[in-house]
Amino acid sequence: MGFEYSEAAQVLSRTPSTLREMLSGLSEAWVNGDEGEGTFSPFEVVGHLVEAETSNWLPRARVIRAGDPSAAFPPFDRYAHRSLHSGKVLSELLDLFARLRAENLREVESWNLTGADLRATAQHPQFGSVTLGQLLSTWVVHDLGHLAQIARVMAKQYREAIGPWAEYLPVVNDRPRPTG
Amino acid sequence: MGFEYSEAAQVLSRTPSTLREMLSGLSEAWVNGDEGEGTFSPFEVVGHLVEAETSNWLPRARVIRAGDPSAAFPPFDRYAHRSLHSGKVLSELLDLFARLRAENLREVESWNLTGADLRATAQHPQFGSVTLGQLLSTWVVHDLGHLAQIARVMAKQYREAIGPWAEYLPVVNDRPRPTG
Repeated sequence: MGFEYSEAAQVLSRTPSTLREMLSGLSEAWVNGDEGEGTFSPFEVVGHLVEAETSNWLPRARVIRAGDPSAAFPPFDRYAHRSLHSGKVLSELLDLFARLRAENLREVESWNLTGADLRATAQHPQFGSVTLGQLLSTWVVHDLGHLAQIARVMAKQYREAIGPWAEYLPVVNDRPRPTG
Repeated sequence: MGFEYSEAAQVLSRTPSTLREMLSGLSEAWVNGDEGEGTFSPFEVVGHLVEAETSNWLPRARVIRAGDPSAAFPPFDRYAHRSLHSGKVLSELLDLFARLRAENLREVESWNLTGADLRATAQHPQFGSVTLGQLLSTWVVHDLGHLAQIARVMAKQYREAIGPWAEYLPVVNDRPRPTG
């Protein structure tokens, strides 16, 4: 698929409600279990998504929109949520994520993006020139990667409980992944 | 986590609504895109979950409940949905899955399972003796593995669109998985 904002928005607008259906009201063992030292629990993934909503996608998109292809993206700390959200409960984070996502989608929709807008560029600290279309596509894939991560992390909590079926269900044997 | 029916049911009861939030109303490109020859689209994953709900989990659990540890599980065809659901639309499959899942959870709840019930066994065609607790745990992990699969398959549709970010988002590079 090539990037089409309307198709991207279908996924982006569903992520908050998908997370709420998946996680809201689960016991602590599901919400706070992780994959071991240095990995994210489902709770932490939601915190990371909140943080990316405020500090990553729209700030970067606005840099590209400003029209200087040599401009650099502002920095993003993928562990910032650990201090920012340590006192919160999951339902607060889910509500906050839903609100921030809706605001961000309204802003992007207000841009009425053209093909030329999507080809505009700025400088990524590692990749060099990247387009607005690539950035907005990455927003979608980042959501989906973290949904897959939450499902995997939850599945692993039952790795011992499933006994011999672990052989047939590779999701419980996957290695932890980079969290970006 | 050890298996506790109440915790397992938290996940099992949420899967139909999670899938509905994630998939209902998406464009065909998201719903029908797969990972290449011989792999499942999100539509096909939902069909497979429906089929497992009728032919896998409860039929196997009933064999264990019948009390003969030498009894063998009935066969399950993991590709049966391809003929069974070829004429259906996604919303029908999502509704059917929700109905079947609710019925199955009501049946399992009616058993008021004890620790001894969960340790009862029957014969898996590959693994030999497996317990009811292992089977019911596997039902949960199977759901989560397929949620992760749907997110991964959708993410891969944007593999080209994200350009250089593919390096940072391993979900788009994952190999297809066994579909059981």
